[in-house]
Amino acid sequence: MSGNLLYAQSGGVTAVINQSASAVIRAAKSHPVIENVFAAKNGITGILSEQLYACDGLDLTTIESSPGGYFGSCRYKLPAPGHAHHQAVMERILSVLEAHNIQYFLYNGGGDSQDTLLKVARFAEARGYPLRCVGIPKTIDNDLMLTDCSPGFGSAAKFLASTTVEIACDLRSMHHNSTRIFVLEVMGRNAGWLAAATALAGDVDPMFAPDAILLPERPYNPSDLLHECRQALQRKGYCMVVASEGIFDQQHHHLIPDHDLDAFGHPQLGGIAPQIASFLHQHTAVKTRWATPDYLQRAARHLASKTDIAQAREVGKVAVERAAEGANGVMTVIQRTSDNPYQWRVGDVPIEEVANRERLLPAEFLDPSRLGVTQKALDHIRPLIAGEDYPKFTHGLPSAGYCALDLVPQKLDAYMQP
Amino acid sequence: MSGNLLYAQSGGVTAVINQSASAVIRAAKSHPVIENVFAAKNGITGILSEQLYACDGLDLTTIESSPGGYFGSCRYKLPAPGHAHHQAVMERILSVLEAHNIQYFLYNGGGDSQDTLLKVARFAEARGYPLRCVGIPKTIDNDLMLTDCSPGFGSAAKFLASTTVEIACDLRSMHHNSTRIFVLEVMGRNAGWLAAATALAGDVDPMFAPDAILLPERPYNPSDLLHECRQALQRKGYCMVVASEGIFDQQHHHLIPDHDLDAFGHPQLGGIAPQIASFLHQHTAVKTRWATPDYLQRAARHLASKTDIAQAREVGKVAVERAAEGANGVMTVIQRTSDNPYQWRVGDVPIEEVANRERLLPAEFLDPSRLGVTQKALDHIRPLIAGEDYPKFTHGLPSAGYCALDLVPQKLDAYMQP
Repeated sequence: MSGNLLYAQSGGVTAVINQSASAVIRAAKSHPVIENVFAAKNGITGILSEQLYACDGLDLTTIESSPGGYFGSCRYKLPAPGHAHHQAVMERILSVLEAHNIQYFLYNGGGDSQDTLLKVARFAEARGYPLRCVGIPKTIDNDLMLTDCSPGFGSAAKFLASTTVEIACDLRSMHHNSTRIFVLEVMGRNAGWLAAATALAGDVDPMFAPDAILLPERPYNPSDLLHECRQALQRKGYCMVVASEGIFDQQHHHLIPDHDLDAFGHPQLGGIAPQIASFLHQHTAVKTRWATPDYLQRAARHLASKTDIAQAREVGKVAVERAAEGANGVMTVIQRTSDNPYQWRVGDVPIEEVANRERLLPAEFLDPSRLGVTQKALDHIRPLIAGEDYPKFTHGLPSAGYCALDLVPQKLDAYMQP
Repeated sequence: MSGNLLYAQSGGVTAVINQSASAVIRAAKSHPVIENVFAAKNGITGILSEQLYACDGLDLTTIESSPGGYFGSCRYKLPAPGHAHHQAVMERILSVLEAHNIQYFLYNGGGDSQDTLLKVARFAEARGYPLRCVGIPKTIDNDLMLTDCSPGFGSAAKFLASTTVEIACDLRSMHHNSTRIFVLEVMGRNAGWLAAATALAGDVDPMFAPDAILLPERPYNPSDLLHECRQALQRKGYCMVVASEGIFDQQHHHLIPDHDLDAFGHPQLGGIAPQIASFLHQHTAVKTRWATPDYLQRAARHLASKTDIAQAREVGKVAVERAAEGANGVMTVIQRTSDNPYQWRVGDVPIEEVANRERLLPAEFLDPSRLGVTQKALDHIRPLIAGEDYPKFTHGLPSAGYCALDLVPQKLDAYMQP
């Protein structure tokens, strides 16, 4: 069986998703059973609109050094079987794949995006169209099931833990008669992996570890927070709080009240830090500042984890190999084979066990005695932020870039959204 | 004349103020006329409380690689002549200096901090106490007079311009059906230097330059912003706005209404980004996100500018030399001697011409035709972010650190604040 391979990016992007992209292109171009390599513009939406980029002649070094999704990403949920538009939308996808002789479809995204891949795989199978669908994991939230970690997480975690060290140094020098409480808001809709990672700052100096970490896995209790904060102020003169954007109150409502929903129906969060800072300032009367780095944390290619980069490449490369071997309906995953020294390899799991599911912090990672995480959590996360791999800098700035991409000539009529 | 040298840090800290500290200690320890080198704990307040650290045996490499103020900083305004406590406070400072045979006093800070140094210099002179007072510039805001730039600015500017590149990559890949407007808030109370620096992102790719830059030097006009934003959405599909925390409305009021005042009487700002983001979202109905990096930008030692580091060292080293030569009442400054290639040297200016003054962006740096800055502004700022100087990383994290510091035995009675 010989045909073309189509790669696409979906969901929130990361500092290293383009490492997976370049690894896919590199592996696919040299594989004997794969003829041409295409990348869909903006994920599944570019398949619907038949906008496919040719991947010949691309400068893979530029791609690798750029954060974000080089080919464009999307937040788009395919209509489920039974939905009025399901049939029409899926038919269109299959027509486009067929028109371009796509026999290998690699979709790079998180749990929601793997649902897209699963729907395509099932529809193609039902129609007897010979499509090999392989997922490639990606999410800074680290909430994908059945993989030891998700590419993108290690780099965001490294940036946040490093910045926690740096903010602690700043705070330590200012608390005498200026800022004494600092609240850092980090991403994490339902899973607190990124917030937990900031505790690694304590590796550099125990004084640099956050004094309280608010996680979606632990209902937010303001009086507990105030207690920990007062203790830290007494003990070391200042206090650092890290808050996941998605913390819940005791009634399991997100703390951010006024929000939009994204295309997957999740609330669009952000802005918990000023709330928490204001609460703490009111009750302690000490100077309080806060930061909401938002996209900074997931786009920080300049401080990417070398381990994360290696894993992002490998899950892409292996996905090509699996697809070429005939695997279908699986996602590549990272398997930890040794803790000390840290060792890993790439395997694969059925997509249906990953799609639409979320992996939260396990209970054993939450410290029951305080608003912190356990040593076990730190030991688990530490190897994922190891190593540096700086992009090239030119005139003081990271050389990210976007070259012109060529669309493959369209073969079908324009897509009319049903 | 032979005596001891006292160094102290004041005001908001930076990623490179400790480079000045280590350069001072290095130069002072090897200078024949200087006996001992001390550093006050928490700036001038540590002199009042007679808390002076001995600088022998310090690990200068650790100091240099740590952001923040290694010896502690302060926000504290000395009472002016005529104030009821002026006499008592100044007498105390002089007693402490005399008790420890301080003949050289080096104060590292911005415009407000140089006012402190000026008061000490004048009081010592009036009393005939032989004190050599030399200021060392520092401020991420770059708003000090008579210096081509201020140590600390180049590194914060490099971090912000780099992150603007990275956020633009993210936004470019998501705007198709997710985030289309992004608002980045940067520091800058009255001067827009940091906001202006983000325009350097356009050096990497013109698409990465912010589409609108809101500066304190230009009254904020919401309809102008909306106009630029709509144009960008039409032209490239997404829009990036950079806003100085200190922007003013047409009536010259800061946009942030509810604020505390810091010790110098300045409003404690922050939080303009959610306001601007909310306004733009309401009027465009597109998905809008925002970031307020706050301390991240001034503590980002991991992405410090090599040029900034070299300048921070040199202003410290030259300050020691000038003081030892007998200079008094001056601050070292950076003088640009050539634009292309960029060359500079360190000179000095009278403190009274620097204290309590602010240098805003000159009119020729503001683009009158749009919410941007001119080529002249970019050419001026570009060399200041040049070069990388990464700290050592251990287990994935920057090796900042604080060793134990030894206080010099006190010789006076405890300080009773008047």
